[in-house]
Amino acid sequence: MLDIPFPPFCAFLGSLGLLCVALVSAWCQHWRGGFSLDGGSRTFNWHPVLMVTGLVVLYGAAALVYRLPNTWSGPKLPWKLLHGGLALGAFVLTVLGLAAVFRFHNSNGTPNMYSLHSWMGLGTVLLFSCQWAAGFGTFLLPWAPAWLRQLYKPIHVFFGSTILMLSVASCVSGINEKLFFSLKNGTTQYKLLPAEAVFANTLGILILLFGVLVVGALARPSWKRPDSDSLDSRQPLLSAER
Amino acid sequence: MLDIPFPPFCAFLGSLGLLCVALVSAWCQHWRGGFSLDGGSRTFNWHPVLMVTGLVVLYGAAALVYRLPNTWSGPKLPWKLLHGGLALGAFVLTVLGLAAVFRFHNSNGTPNMYSLHSWMGLGTVLLFSCQWAAGFGTFLLPWAPAWLRQLYKPIHVFFGSTILMLSVASCVSGINEKLFFSLKNGTTQYKLLPAEAVFANTLGILILLFGVLVVGALARPSWKRPDSDSLDSRQPLLSAER
Repeated sequence: MLDIPFPPFCAFLGSLGLLCVALVSAWCQHWRGGFSLDGGSRTFNWHPVLMVTGLVVLYGAAALVYRLPNTWSGPKLPWKLLHGGLALGAFVLTVLGLAAVFRFHNSNGTPNMYSLHSWMGLGTVLLFSCQWAAGFGTFLLPWAPAWLRQLYKPIHVFFGSTILMLSVASCVSGINEKLFFSLKNGTTQYKLLPAEAVFANTLGILILLFGVLVVGALARPSWKRPDSDSLDSRQPLLSAER
Repeated sequence: MLDIPFPPFCAFLGSLGLLCVALVSAWCQHWRGGFSLDGGSRTFNWHPVLMVTGLVVLYGAAALVYRLPNTWSGPKLPWKLLHGGLALGAFVLTVLGLAAVFRFHNSNGTPNMYSLHSWMGLGTVLLFSCQWAAGFGTFLLPWAPAWLRQLYKPIHVFFGSTILMLSVASCVSGINEKLFFSLKNGTTQYKLLPAEAVFANTLGILILLFGVLVVGALARPSWKRPDSDSLDSRQPLLSAER
């Protein structure tokens, strides 16, 4: 394939991610009434913004840290802290995003956790919490033995991409569902494709594009750390690293 | 990671795929009124069945052909024909699945192509058609030069997994949307989680699981043909193979 270097591609992905955050915020601000904490629909609006920002864009940034050539030499601890810190930030935003939708449902007497979107979304967040805890316990705490790191690393890598795919599928089904809920009347019916529908559909396609490009970047052999399969398991444990 | 051989995993994936086909058929038959060609909702019911069968399960089978160790030696032409033939079968079912939903919409005066689900789904099918045509022209017709095969192969492999991820995301958003459309009244409202909702949500989760496991199997290094990156580009062209 064309031999694009990672850094400019990463800058493009960063711009695309920021565009997704800007568009989802603009959608909720301009068409859905903005943001509040009163338990109404403006509380719900934090849900898409926080999920796209946390579970897609910030998560994608965390996943890509080890594709930066700077991370391939020198002490690993700062990069591990950056990777784990970004993922933790993504997780916090995700939990706040869940809190927003639960608060909205509870304030309005709507049941939680009935739609396929909610099953998939919560399953994704649960997987993410296991992924973060297992990654922290295995790669950041000093007592995990080398054989455990070696055993767990491909599992962590596999679930890293899988969780992003599931996040993107959750976002897309959520945007689709929200548009059917919101665009029901007169000339703004979803099926008449008003401006809001074109805008939010485009947002959904850009989120898909971001997810596919991040997963593709993670899988691209020439962007992985050379000899990454063996190096990580041979590295000194954290306590002996510096 | 645990060293599972591919064939039993493939048998498990085959069973999971057949289960998805059985469940989507049972959903449409038992809860959605069965099948017909009259343009009504029973014509629509072909849409989920054909999409899950074609664009997910048969597509997944086609994608996995080259992970069978039998394909790694001997003449390649029969396996290429199997891969291309399964993909063609998947494509035909997909087009019939699209025809079912367009006929249903047109018979009922509903616009086509307004939802994010439809944008994503049609985009996936268009990518699939490009993928099939480019794969046929590059790997099955005899005149493609070796350098073109070598250049195009990683692109074909990347889009192979990408299209499956997009298919699965399309299916899940479609099932979610259909349940909101269909489960509106009395005790069968979606938010009350009636039996149909549990059944179809479970179907959605199993489709996700199938997609994730197929993409994971495709990415697993030990299940790829040894030296697959260089072998394919060095192989004789089709016309000289037998």
